[in-house]
Amino acid sequence: MNFDELNINDRLKKQLRFINEIDRVKQIFRKSRLFDNSRFENDAEHSWTICIMSCLLGEYADFHIDAGKVFLMLLIHDIVEIDAGDTFLYSQNRADAYNNEAAAAERIFGILDTDQKNFFMDIWNEFEEGQTCEARFAKVFDRLEPLLQNYITEGFTWKKFGITYDMIIEKNIQIRDASEKIWDFVLVMLDDAVTRGFLKR
Amino acid sequence: MNFDELNINDRLKKQLRFINEIDRVKQIFRKSRLFDNSRFENDAEHSWTICIMSCLLGEYADFHIDAGKVFLMLLIHDIVEIDAGDTFLYSQNRADAYNNEAAAAERIFGILDTDQKNFFMDIWNEFEEGQTCEARFAKVFDRLEPLLQNYITEGFTWKKFGITYDMIIEKNIQIRDASEKIWDFVLVMLDDAVTRGFLKR
Repeated sequence: MNFDELNINDRLKKQLRFINEIDRVKQIFRKSRLFDNSRFENDAEHSWTICIMSCLLGEYADFHIDAGKVFLMLLIHDIVEIDAGDTFLYSQNRADAYNNEAAAAERIFGILDTDQKNFFMDIWNEFEEGQTCEARFAKVFDRLEPLLQNYITEGFTWKKFGITYDMIIEKNIQIRDASEKIWDFVLVMLDDAVTRGFLKR
Repeated sequence: MNFDELNINDRLKKQLRFINEIDRVKQIFRKSRLFDNSRFENDAEHSWTICIMSCLLGEYADFHIDAGKVFLMLLIHDIVEIDAGDTFLYSQNRADAYNNEAAAAERIFGILDTDQKNFFMDIWNEFEEGQTCEARFAKVFDRLEPLLQNYITEGFTWKKFGITYDMIIEKNIQIRDASEKIWDFVLVMLDDAVTRGFLKR
C-alpha cells in the first residue's frame, strides 16, 4: 500500500512518499550498540539521541548556536544511508562514501518539490561541509555518542575492529573545535577506558 | 559500566546518567508498525519520524510556530514511557496513565540539576497541556503518524484492536484545531481506508 492513489494534491503526495521512504533508516544499523549493549543501534535511534544530547549539552558550545538548526541537521544527516549504507568512521573508503551519500541525497530529497528538496539539501550540505557554527556543533554529537556507547559497553566496537586510542583522537579531534569542555571530558573518558582495558594505546 | 566513576564534575555526571537512562525508550514498543510493516516501532523511532514530519509539513500549520520548540517537545514527549509504558490512544485508562507519566517525568528529568530538570519539565508539561500553538501543532504529528502507518499497513492496529472510524475521529479531532489542511487529508485517507476495507465504520 502507498499514498499515491489518494485524492490529494501532488505536493502532499510527494511529502507522504518522502515520509514513507525515510522510514527505511530504521533498518540501517550502525557499528555501535545501545547503551545497555542489548543490540546494535539504528540510524533513526542514533539521530534521536544526538538531538537530545545537543540540547542537553548545548551549554558547552564555544559559540552561540541556533539550536533548531542543529536539531534539523542531526535529524536528517543519516537519511542518505538508506542508499549508501553506514560507513564506519574509521574505514578507509570515506571519500567514496561521500559520493554515494551525495547521490543518495539527490534521490531522496528529490522526492519532494524543488523548494523542499533545496531546503533539505542545503541543511544536509551545511552539515557535511562542517564550516558553520551549527554544523561544527552538530558534528560533536555525531562523534560523541559512539564514544559514550563504547565506554559503557566496555569497548565493544573498539575491540571488535581494533580501534586504538590514537585512531580515536585523529578521527574525533574536530570535537575540540566546537567545544573545549566536551573534548576535555572525552580525554578523561578515553584515559579511563585505557586504564580499564577497554581500549588499547 | 556507567559514567559515575569518571573524574568529572557532578553536573556532567548527571547529564551522562540522563543520556544513559533515556536510551531505554528504544525498548518501548508502540502499537503501530513501521511503514514497511516489518515490525513494531519503538518510541525513539516514533519521536524521530514525527520531528521530521513537523518540519516537512510545517507549512500546514494554521498559525505561526517556533519550529525548534516543536522539535524539543516531540523529542522528549515519550521519555516518560520508560516508567509508565506505552498507553494506547484508544484505551480506557488514559487518566491513570497521565499520573504515572507525571511521576516518571519527575524521576527521569529529576536525574538532572534543577535548572535542566525544570527546563525539560516545562517543555513536557506544555506538550501535555496542549494549549500553546507549539503544543497543539506538535500533537498533530503524534496523532498523524499512527494514522499513516495504519493506512499503509492496511489497518494493522485498527483491525487488531477493533478500532472504528468513529473512534478515530473522536480521538484525533484535535488535529483540526491546529491544521485544517492536515485534518482534511486525514478525512480523505480514512474514507479511502473504509472503502478498501482497512477500517470499519
